[in-house]
Parts: sequence; C-alpha cells; structure tokens
Amino acid sequence: MKPVRLAILGLGTVGGGALKLLQENAAEIRRRTGREIQITYVGTRRPRPDLDLDPSIKQSSDLLDIVRQPDVDVVVEVMGGIHPAYEIIMEALKHGKQVVTANKALLAEHGNELFKAADEHSVQIAYEAAVAGGIPIIKVIREGLAANKIEWLAGIINGTGNFILTEMREKGRAFADVLKEAQELGYAEADPTFDVEGIDAAHKLTILASCAFGIPLQFDKVYTEGISKITAQDVGYAEALGYRIKHLGIARRSDKGIELRVHPTLIPEEELIANVNGVKNAVLVQANAVGPTLYYGAGAGAGPTASAVVADVIDIVRDIIYTEDGAGTIPQLAFENLADTPILTSDEMTTGYYIRINAEDQTGVLANVTTILSRAGIGIDAIMQQPRLKDLIPIVILTDPVVESKMNDALSQIQALAEIHGEIVRIRLELLEN
Amino acid sequence: MKPVRLAILGLGTVGGGALKLLQENAAEIRRRTGREIQITYVGTRRPRPDLDLDPSIKQSSDLLDIVRQPDVDVVVEVMGGIHPAYEIIMEALKHGKQVVTANKALLAEHGNELFKAADEHSVQIAYEAAVAGGIPIIKVIREGLAANKIEWLAGIINGTGNFILTEMREKGRAFADVLKEAQELGYAEADPTFDVEGIDAAHKLTILASCAFGIPLQFDKVYTEGISKITAQDVGYAEALGYRIKHLGIARRSDKGIELRVHPTLIPEEELIANVNGVKNAVLVQANAVGPTLYYGAGAGAGPTASAVVADVIDIVRDIIYTEDGAGTIPQLAFENLADTPILTSDEMTTGYYIRINAEDQTGVLANVTTILSRAGIGIDAIMQQPRLKDLIPIVILTDPVVESKMNDALSQIQALAEIHGEIVRIRLELLEN
Repeated sequence: MKPVRLAILGLGTVGGGALKLLQENAAEIRRRTGREIQITYVGTRRPRPDLDLDPSIKQSSDLLDIVRQPDVDVVVEVMGGIHPAYEIIMEALKHGKQVVTANKALLAEHGNELFKAADEHSVQIAYEAAVAGGIPIIKVIREGLAANKIEWLAGIINGTGNFILTEMREKGRAFADVLKEAQELGYAEADPTFDVEGIDAAHKLTILASCAFGIPLQFDKVYTEGISKITAQDVGYAEALGYRIKHLGIARRSDKGIELRVHPTLIPEEELIANVNGVKNAVLVQANAVGPTLYYGAGAGAGPTASAVVADVIDIVRDIIYTEDGAGTIPQLAFENLADTPILTSDEMTTGYYIRINAEDQTGVLANVTTILSRAGIGIDAIMQQPRLKDLIPIVILTDPVVESKMNDALSQIQALAEIHGEIVRIRLELLEN
Repeated sequence: MKPVRLAILGLGTVGGGALKLLQENAAEIRRRTGREIQITYVGTRRPRPDLDLDPSIKQSSDLLDIVRQPDVDVVVEVMGGIHPAYEIIMEALKHGKQVVTANKALLAEHGNELFKAADEHSVQIAYEAAVAGGIPIIKVIREGLAANKIEWLAGIINGTGNFILTEMREKGRAFADVLKEAQELGYAEADPTFDVEGIDAAHKLTILASCAFGIPLQFDKVYTEGISKITAQDVGYAEALGYRIKHLGIARRSDKGIELRVHPTLIPEEELIANVNGVKNAVLVQANAVGPTLYYGAGAGAGPTASAVVADVIDIVRDIIYTEDGAGTIPQLAFENLADTPILTSDEMTTGYYIRINAEDQTGVLANVTTILSRAGIGIDAIMQQPRLKDLIPIVILTDPVVESKMNDALSQIQALAEIHGEIVRIRLELLEN
C-alpha cells in the first residue's frame, strides 16, 4: 500500500510539533490507520540549512513549488499569517491537494473563498487546529452533535486572556501586571493586542459559529471587546456576588438573528466553565437534543495543536483509504489491529489509598501503624486524627501510589493489631496527574 | 437522490427519543446531510397497535423479518438486553445492513464477535450512544485524539452513582437514603445493582478502553467495586482533606499491562472532574500529545442518548453519500447549504449586565438609579453597596437580560445624574442556562 505523503509548510512551534508527533507516535498512528504517513517535504519561508531533518525529507523555501509536486498528497499549512498562506493554499487546492491548516485568522477572514475553491477542486481543507488547539471541537460540532439544532455556544478560546483573568481573581493582581508576566512566560506576544483585545477569540468564534449554525464566515460582524479595562476591583465585586469574569466568545441563535460576540462576561461560579483556569480552553455548547455539553483542554502549544493537525491528517488518510479500498473508514475499535496487551489483576494495580482505622485511644497505635506502612515501603501523604466516635478514634491516612498486593499485606498486619477495632476502610485515591 | 432508510427496533426511552429527534430536527439534519433520512420500519417486541405512528412507517413485532427487508439501509437497535438483540444484529449484519446500537452490555460482553461479523460483511456497527450518552466520547477517542498515544482515562460514566455521591457530599445524607430517592426520581432501576455496584460503568469502561488502547473487549477482566459501602463519614473526612469521592471507571496503560478498574476514588477537589455533579457524566483523557482533555454532558435520558444514536446515523448517511457520489463526506462548514441568517448588531443583542457606579454618599441616588432602570423596563437581580472608596460609594447592580440599546439609553441617563462620578463600568453577564 502506498504511503500517504505530506508536505509540512512552516516549522515553527506548530510545524515542529507536528513533525515530532508524526515521528514519535508513528507506530501508534500506523496501528490506527493501517497506512504509512510519509513526510516528503518540509517548507520554510527562509532557507534553513541548519535543520537536521531525516535525509528522506526534501527541504525547500519555494513553498509554491512544493504544493505542486506530484509526491505530495496532503499540504499541512502551519506558517500562520494571511499572506502568502492564502496564495499557497489556493495553489495547493488547484493541484488537487488535500489541505490541513491551523490558521484561524486566514479562515475567519478568507475562509469563504478558500472553501469555495476546495469544493471546486473536490478536496478538503481541514482545520481542527484552528480553534481551541487540541480540543476536537470542530469534529464535535460538525459530527458529534450533528443530530442537534445548536442553540448557543460559549467558549474560553484564548488561553492568554484566561490566564490573565485567572491570576487577577486568584491573587488580586492588576491587569497590566499579569500581562507583563504572561509576556515573560511566552503566553502573550510582544504585541498582545490579538489576545487581550479579543481579535484572536473573534477569529475562532467566527469559525465555531459557522459550523454550529451553517452560516458563512463573517468575522467583520463579530462584536469584539477585550479585557484590558477589567480591574481587580470588579473581579472582586463579581466574586462577592457569586460570579467569575471570563473572556467568552458567544454565538447565539435568537428569533431575530444570530449574535456573535466576544467580551468579558460574568458567569455563575458554580458553572463548570467558570472553573476553567489558567491557559486552558473550554467550549460549552447548548444543543436542543443533548442539552449542555462541555469540551475542555489545552488551547495552544506545540503538542496540543499538533494533536489536532495530525488528527486531521489521519481523517484524510482514512478518506484516502476509503476511496482506494472502499473499505470502512474507521476501525470499529479505533485500531486496525488489536493488541494482546495483558490486563492486570487487581493485585498488580497501582493506586494511592485513603485508609480509615478506628483505634483505641492508646499511645503507640499510630507508631505501630506507620511502622507497618514504612516497612512495606508505602509513603504516607497525610494523616488526620478525628474526634472520638463511639469510644474509638478514627484515624485517616492518605498514601502515595502503591501496588495493591503490597497494600493488602500491610493492611492485614494493621488489621491484626490489638488496638484496631472493626474493619479497616480503604478507598483508592488518584491525583489524576500526568 | 434516494433517502437513507432506517428501521428503529425498540420504542422505549431511547427509541422513542430517536424517533422524535429525527422528526423534530429533520430540517436541520437535512441541511447537514443533503439527504433525506426516512424511517421505514419501527419494530417492537410485542405488538403495539396503540402507537400513533406516521402511516408511512411500517410497524411489526417480527424483528428478524424487519432486518431482512430490502427497504432498510440502517438498523437502529435500541431495545437493550443481550437476547434477542444479539441475534437480531447478527441477522442484520448478514443482510448487509449498517447497525447503530446503544447497547453497552451487549457490546462489552459480545462485541468482539459482533465486530468480527460486521467486518466480514463489510458493514459498520456504530455505538456512540453506548458510552456516556450524549457526549461524543467514542468519536473523540477514535478520531479526535487519533494522533495521540492515550495514557489513561478516567470517567464518571454512571449518572445514578454520581447523583448518589453528590447528594451524600452536599447534604451529608446516607447512601441508602439517597438511593431510595434516586429510585423514586426514576434515575435508578428497581434493581439498582447494575448502577451502584459498577457493572454498568464496567460495561462502558470496557468499550472506552478498547478504543483508547486498541485491545479486544474484555469485560470479564475489569476490577469492579461499587459505591454501596461508601459512608457519609468517609465522604466528610475526604472533603476535610481536600478530596471528593467519585465513582470512576479508570483505564490506564503501564509498563506491565493495562489496568481496567471501576471503584470509588478520592480525587483532588480542584480537578474539573471533581466538580461534575448530579446525574452528569464526564470523561477525562490523558494523551501524550494533547495532554489532559475533558468531555462533559448528559450520560442518559431520551434526548441525549438519541443525540448520539442519530449522530451515528448521520455518519452512516455521509458514508453512503461518499460511496455513491464520491464527494466529500462532511461539508466544510458542517452544512450542505449555508443560510443567510442575519447577524445582529451589538444594539440588538440581549444580555444581563453588571453595572458599577461611583456615587456620592447621598440619599436618593439609589432611588434615582433604580427608577431609571425600572422606567426602561430593566429588571434588577441584585444590588450591592460597597465600602466608601476615595470619597465615593461603589454601587454594583446586576440586571436581568435586556436588549443592549435599552441599556445604553438607561446608562446615559444614569451617567447624567449629578450624584454619579466617573465613567459607569458595565460588564455583560450570562447565566448560561438553557
């Protein structure tokens, strides 16, 4: 079977991330698609003789020439900017190439023409990475919620703005102060206008709204207001009233028409989306059959954006396979070949533990218990002694992750202590960290 | 163009919901697919002459006969139970029908055989509705995150259990007490074992894990522990330590193999998934490129489950169109035909407001302000007066939703009041309710 051949245009954060991801996860992706994905070209605007690429990858700064090559099936445009990205994608479409792009500004402002050209040449422009980074929100709206009439959506779709508002609320800091830190951390550009004045969010909202309602892209009609005038004072007052201020992109269908707006918004603190903090993104979608659903994750960065770019590539690979083989596009259980990886027994599993024992009020019991845990090599994360209950002292211990068989041994020793009454309670504990 | 013809087998909550959804959202779905979806058969296990169906829909209780009919392209199995669902789906596959099912127990226990049969007959079994109801988690894992190596996932995938644990935490209630209420509310079955002992969650985890890791369905290897032994005492102690107890389905890849487990779990209260309350579901996925992403929504009920069933039908319709026309499967902006719905100007938008004015400490100012709002027909939701700041009293008012032009008029009247100093601050407010 022929490999599917890619040209990656742009080797910045996203392009570099996509290249790395395609190499690192090659085996897993191959298991999913059953077809090799081969990078035939890497294009950069300026010659980059310093790049240490695999010799099988051709390198060029003539991007228009790359997209005309016969050994390119899919063009991945991750250079950013309107020009020359527009002209290069148009040229790629003309040559019948499938296109994957992360370029929200280009799509929001020129997507109508680009999609028309794609239709004329019977190819696709895939753009999952253009909105909310690694969250597959375009797929969710175009496919996952396709049975619904979408009523409205509200998204935290600019991580920099959310980082600033989170810091302002959590630490009472001033806008300008946090913005400076965001710039130092590399979250915000030297010219932060696109982020803090809502233009980046308006680009993304434009795309989301078109997919949700089936309307042309209309970036110029988005009402856009930034967060630069938000003060720590108002953040505090909002909190006192039970609200948080988030910079939201909102698209809502009403009887009279569609509202497209990006602005700071008070939302009730108990809403899940009000608790999306730092640079993370989230989109809340209200649809008539499913009700509210929310999608949360990283909205930017090399890995997350590359995740979306390469997912688009995989969709295209599956379409190509479908066209060539006529076989089902997506394997039933996600992978072409299932693995016989062993499933662990409960003895072999590793988790942290919450342990509650009921002890007589006797000096030494805690020492005995902690000695048993320590001898078993089980780390203790917290100990809490509770007020006497029915003549016994409840003692709660949280442990570090440990193999279950080890914990079973330790607990049967503890259970055997004379000072311990009743059954030991144990509940597993997970920090849900990476 | 020929319509795509469906047979719906089972007219309970899910089947009835799917029928209703296909009818109610017919126009929107038609805009998305460009192809009519026609229900040709409805099958129920017992004859149901009482059903008041559209006369164009044939009705039968001979389900095996329905799936053999030539005027059926897609069989929607929403009867539930292992038998005769298994035999009927097998018969449908044999006759080359595409199958959509919401039957998690059937797939978790017999999916390997069913998927094998589907492959042999070159058809698909779609099963989005089998896991986490309306949340498109299967699509996310099979497609949206396809570029990733998934490391682990943890899900609240049984709404009844989550409702019980939420009530226990928020109100200090006992397990048995809340279970009784859940049964009265219709969340839990008369025999609640499947829900509270984790069997339902284990069925769903089996399916999720296979899609995440590419392994055969292995329901019998899931370690399963219910929530019936969780006490209000331990829920309280966990909270004192900064944790919440959730009933999670966890699938994790380690060096030695794969852990598949369903059990009560302490998780840090600041995690987003720890704040998923009531009957809602959520799945947190940790993947190597995108990092953590979370998917939240309704895990059961007629509308949400039908949303997933019909999304599967639409996927199949798009595949059929692709096969017949060779054209792109999914429209670039989600709909075949874009609408020219007007986009509202900011004057025409409707939102609530947070208003902050700085007033001299003068009797009557609040009366003047509220009179202006009241005359403009703007409802007040809350008023908060803050301590004097730089000789002025900050007054914060939260309003009900109002058309922006009205608010502009009222605010210019308020701004003109002699007692008001400086610019009025206004920030929009959204309750994010349905």
